Amino acid sequence: MHFTMENGSFALCAIFLELALCWAFAMFVDYTGESIGIVVENDPDRVRGTHPRNHLSSVYYYMFQDVHLTMVVGFGFLGTFLKRYGYSSAVPNLLIAAVTLQWATLCQGFFQMQRGKIHVSITNLLHADFATLTTFISFGAVLELTTPIQLIVMVICEISDVGVSMLVHVFGAYFGLMVSCVLRNNRPEKESVCITLPTPDLFSVMGTIFLWLFWPTLNASLAQGDAQHRAVINTYYSLAASAVVTLAIGLSSFVDKKQQFFTVHIQNSALAGGVAIGTAADMMIHPFGAIIVGSVAGLVSILGMVYLTPGINRKFGIRDPCGIHNLHGLSGLIAAFVGAIAAALATEKNYNYSLYRQFPARTAMGKTLDYWDIQYHVENVQPGLGRSALGQGAYQIAALGTTLAFALVGGLITGLILQLPFFNQAGRNAFTDDES
Amino acid sequence: MHFTMENGSFALCAIFLELALCWAFAMFVDYTGESIGIVVENDPDRVRGTHPRNHLSSVYYYMFQDVHLTMVVGFGFLGTFLKRYGYSSAVPNLLIAAVTLQWATLCQGFFQMQRGKIHVSITNLLHADFATLTTFISFGAVLELTTPIQLIVMVICEISDVGVSMLVHVFGAYFGLMVSCVLRNNRPEKESVCITLPTPDLFSVMGTIFLWLFWPTLNASLAQGDAQHRAVINTYYSLAASAVVTLAIGLSSFVDKKQQFFTVHIQNSALAGGVAIGTAADMMIHPFGAIIVGSVAGLVSILGMVYLTPGINRKFGIRDPCGIHNLHGLSGLIAAFVGAIAAALATEKNYNYSLYRQFPARTAMGKTLDYWDIQYHVENVQPGLGRSALGQGAYQIAALGTTLAFALVGGLITGLILQLPFFNQAGRNAFTDDES
Amino acid sequence: MHFTMENGSFALCAIFLELALCWAFAMFVDYTGESIGIVVENDPDRVRGTHPRNHLSSVYYYMFQDVHLTMVVGFGFLGTFLKRYGYSSAVPNLLIAAVTLQWATLCQGFFQMQRGKIHVSITNLLHADFATLTTFISFGAVLELTTPIQLIVMVICEISDVGVSMLVHVFGAYFGLMVSCVLRNNRPEKESVCITLPTPDLFSVMGTIFLWLFWPTLNASLAQGDAQHRAVINTYYSLAASAVVTLAIGLSSFVDKKQQFFTVHIQNSALAGGVAIGTAADMMIHPFGAIIVGSVAGLVSILGMVYLTPGINRKFGIRDPCGIHNLHGLSGLIAAFVGAIAAALATEKNYNYSLYRQFPARTAMGKTLDYWDIQYHVENVQPGLGRSALGQGAYQIAALGTTLAFALVGGLITGLILQLPFFNQAGRNAFTDDES
Repeated sequence: MHFTMENGSFALCAIFLELALCWAFAMFVDYTGESIGIVVENDPDRVRGTHPRNHLSSVYYYMFQDVHLTMVVGFGFLGTFLKRYGYSSAVPNLLIAAVTLQWATLCQGFFQMQRGKIHVSITNLLHADFATLTTFISFGAVLELTTPIQLIVMVICEISDVGVSMLVHVFGAYFGLMVSCVLRNNRPEKESVCITLPTPDLFSVMGTIFLWLFWPTLNASLAQGDAQHRAVINTYYSLAASAVVTLAIGLSSFVDKKQQFFTVHIQNSALAGGVAIGTAADMMIHPFGAIIVGSVAGLVSILGMVYLTPGINRKFGIRDPCGIHNLHGLSGLIAAFVGAIAAALATEKNYNYSLYRQFPARTAMGKTLDYWDIQYHVENVQPGLGRSALGQGAYQIAALGTTLAFALVGGLITGLILQLPFFNQAGRNAFTDDES
Repeated sequence: MHFTMENGSFALCAIFLELALCWAFAMFVDYTGESIGIVVENDPDRVRGTHPRNHLSSVYYYMFQDVHLTMVVGFGFLGTFLKRYGYSSAVPNLLIAAVTLQWATLCQGFFQMQRGKIHVSITNLLHADFATLTTFISFGAVLELTTPIQLIVMVICEISDVGVSMLVHVFGAYFGLMVSCVLRNNRPEKESVCITLPTPDLFSVMGTIFLWLFWPTLNASLAQGDAQHRAVINTYYSLAASAVVTLAIGLSSFVDKKQQFFTVHIQNSALAGGVAIGTAADMMIHPFGAIIVGSVAGLVSILGMVYLTPGINRKFGIRDPCGIHNLHGLSGLIAAFVGAIAAALATEKNYNYSLYRQFPARTAMGKTLDYWDIQYHVENVQPGLGRSALGQGAYQIAALGTTLAFALVGGLITGLILQLPFFNQAGRNAFTDDES
Repeated sequence: MHFTMENGSFALCAIFLELALCWAFAMFVDYTGESIGIVVENDPDRVRGTHPRNHLSSVYYYMFQDVHLTMVVGFGFLGTFLKRYGYSSAVPNLLIAAVTLQWATLCQGFFQMQRGKIHVSITNLLHADFATLTTFISFGAVLELTTPIQLIVMVICEISDVGVSMLVHVFGAYFGLMVSCVLRNNRPEKESVCITLPTPDLFSVMGTIFLWLFWPTLNASLAQGDAQHRAVINTYYSLAASAVVTLAIGLSSFVDKKQQFFTVHIQNSALAGGVAIGTAADMMIHPFGAIIVGSVAGLVSILGMVYLTPGINRKFGIRDPCGIHNLHGLSGLIAAFVGAIAAALATEKNYNYSLYRQFPARTAMGKTLDYWDIQYHVENVQPGLGRSALGQGAYQIAALGTTLAFALVGGLITGLILQLPFFNQAGRNAFTDDES
């Protein structure tokens, strides 16, 4: 991984960016009340000094730390199977994470400012980690096309765009593919860049395994109460099913040495179950439903790789070296539809009390859903919209349409920005020369 | 890792298996009450919407996630030191885990069905992870002898047999060795298959380190209250002692390059302390007792490797490439005897109130031990048997005998099933060709 | 990694050490009350069997387990970039950890003995892990100079010296450099020993990533209440800033293949933010303050490596193959000064109620700060000293001076002890021969 920019312009840009972030943090970011020892008046605990609400909520902190771990270790090592990207995949991912964690704090907090300040708690750090996930997915589509400066610019554009969408996989995949399509002429001439290592790479297996193991925590980390239990259980079985289906097919296809590249993608298809259960993970889809979703997602991911990807790539001139369309794109679409169907089938009989916490908009029009949440230490008062079950399902599909539109338009604009002479300079392919 | 089954019969078998699992889940498996928002009537929290008992119990969820991580990362990478098993050890382990997590849910839940349904909670996921541990141990004994289909069949037979035994190491080791003995004629002719890599393998070190670090959580995850503290502390010191003893011996023996294979086994002997303290981890054996157990287990594991293994292997025609007899078999036997002695020495004076929770059978005949458990959110009412301390110790030994019998008979039957022409087909050694 | 001591004297020494530790544990170490089922009299929970205070405090246990993981995985793999230390870095680190975890229990517990016994709880295990951190840092400075026996002796001397200082990075770095200076004539003649691997090493990247990800937990694990929130948030942003600054500079400098060694150090400089924020992590320095500290620490770490290290090494005849002076030494000094400044600026207005928990000595003279701590389950009664804000800042600087003095004098004495003929025998460089 050599840079061809001898002038160190990338270092200067990054330091300038860090200065700008520092200024923005000084202006707009501060702690939340739970981080500065504010206690409720007249509270009996006060005289004892430590207010219980000020303690770290343990499940929550634990889940944050595990999501944090999974993002960088899982995605950092997933891409190491590419012959000349090994070191490049892990170190730039760390750099991307370091930028996005700060920038996402600002972008996501902008909409929740109180008296001109973004009050950060561990919730914000967790949301920033999910924003990082989006950029890692897109990185997989463009890693052979961008200079480091372009990569940082892309990440900044993408975070500004994604907001706090729950459909991070769909967004990340189609945003990245659109950028990749715009930049397709930057492709290096030697196609050999993406040939995989001669032996199957255990680091990439490690990345897959970390993601496979922690995906239940990923899907459960934003859920609450009984929904969190369901998110863990559903994701666990969905991943098991997709691993059985895809690894069985993958191992059976290990006939030809030339299919090594192919097989790494199959290995990643074991994760399709985790993506595809994402939206519906905390809904009442029952363990067998999770197994069906996982099996179907695994199959679709593999079939997409064999029959769909070659056509798409030829038609749009892209390449998708990490197969993100099959893992994140297709599985993300499945997730949206499964979520919509599960939402349309949700009744008070199935969900008991948690129906209105799961779908607050279904609370009767004008009524407020008043509950005190132990985990987040906040009182939520949300006005109901009286939405029906079918209406909720339709709303989920509409959210998918919006996400796709934002991803494609955002990716197009970002790609055009990256084509500006200012960014599109020397240093192309800087991340790719691991060995030459 | 190439498959010689060009016909894809393995993929078809696995997909059929997944369909069967899906059907069984649809018939028999559903959520527990805590996962579906059921709240206790007349509960003051109800009006606030989120019932505290529906929240994830944090220690418990955390321990499940760490056990889950350790199983697949730890055991997946332990076997990578074998020259031609690197990739094969990690990926098939993931496949085995994916099958057993589902199948164990059914087998273990079968005995706890309520109105025809298995109600799964995170407890079930944790128990399923321990069942996976058993199959990973056995896998180490047969990985050069089985086809992928045979491996899946073995795992299914083994899980049906092991139930919820606490002596998972003893069971897994002797079950695997018995299967290995029955299948001994399937051994590939080229003995070179198991030669280790020319350089010591850091992936296998990583597997060892993960297991060494997380073993306190493994041993503590099923304990409660003060017993959980003891399980952590005892395991921590036992592992430290076995690491000092075995690594010191191991490093001193690094004289000859040809002993590389030998040294990897020594490295694994650092884990013997964790296995040997298993049964007594939550008992009052005190830190110095844990250090004695760990030191002895480390020594026995190494001496077994040098003096016992060659004789056993020659006599029974097996090979044990991963040394599971020394790490899991012998250390598991030590664990059972240490547990029996500790149980025979348990008095109300030592254990205070927790004696009867630790050994419920020692509660006076007919009396019930009524306690409310914070972690599991259940009221346990267990009728006492008035068992004496010595009786409890004898009972632990009897449990060892039963486990051994089930392991050996189960392994024999499983080995014979695998010899059936239907399973014993082409594709032998399919997992072994990492590089040729 | 071959040993040249054919006589196995190292194994005998280690076994003798383990016996001595076992004797000391039998004499002096036992469980705390929470591990033996002692319940408070007249407690309403008593009749229900499980006392809440006997349950594992989940955040606390979780943080212990993660610190434990990070120490061995993070530091174990950090050193694998050295060509001939790969295996040697991970396995001896495990041995060091196994020795120090036991020895630190005795040394740290010695000062808190009650009725002749050290009562160990998970708190003790966590403190022992931090002692291990100190020895890992020093190990980086001497790994090419010591025999295994010298290494164990050094670790035992160091733990006896470090006590429970919060400035573990400063202590570990200057202790190790002083030992390295005393032993400088033991240097192997072939300088090639420390040449890095031809390709950048992903294992060392993995070590860096684990430390980068878990550093928030490291810094937060000994804090409480709202201070714990601040420790997580401040460390998170400080690390992000130092990663952006150092990786940007590092990637821009990847011009020349011969700078590979250099670049691994830059990679480690991404961690400087975690070290430099250490002392002030739980103080009110605000997110932008954390970003400034992280950026400055990253820059200082890199500039130190380029301009300071060559001069220091030439002047004192040391080498510092792992660059510990830049990562731990300089960043540790920054940490001490940042902590002093933050303490001098602390007011009741900024900190609300938590001021007196953060700085108990500032409580009015003779008054006691009476609070009940949920996490540690203890009632702390600490007499105030009426110290002023400036006085507190000066006290922090004085603590730095004391730590430096103990480190340098302790390192000198330890180095002289290691020079004794008894320890300074054959077997030099035993850990360095990974491949020859």
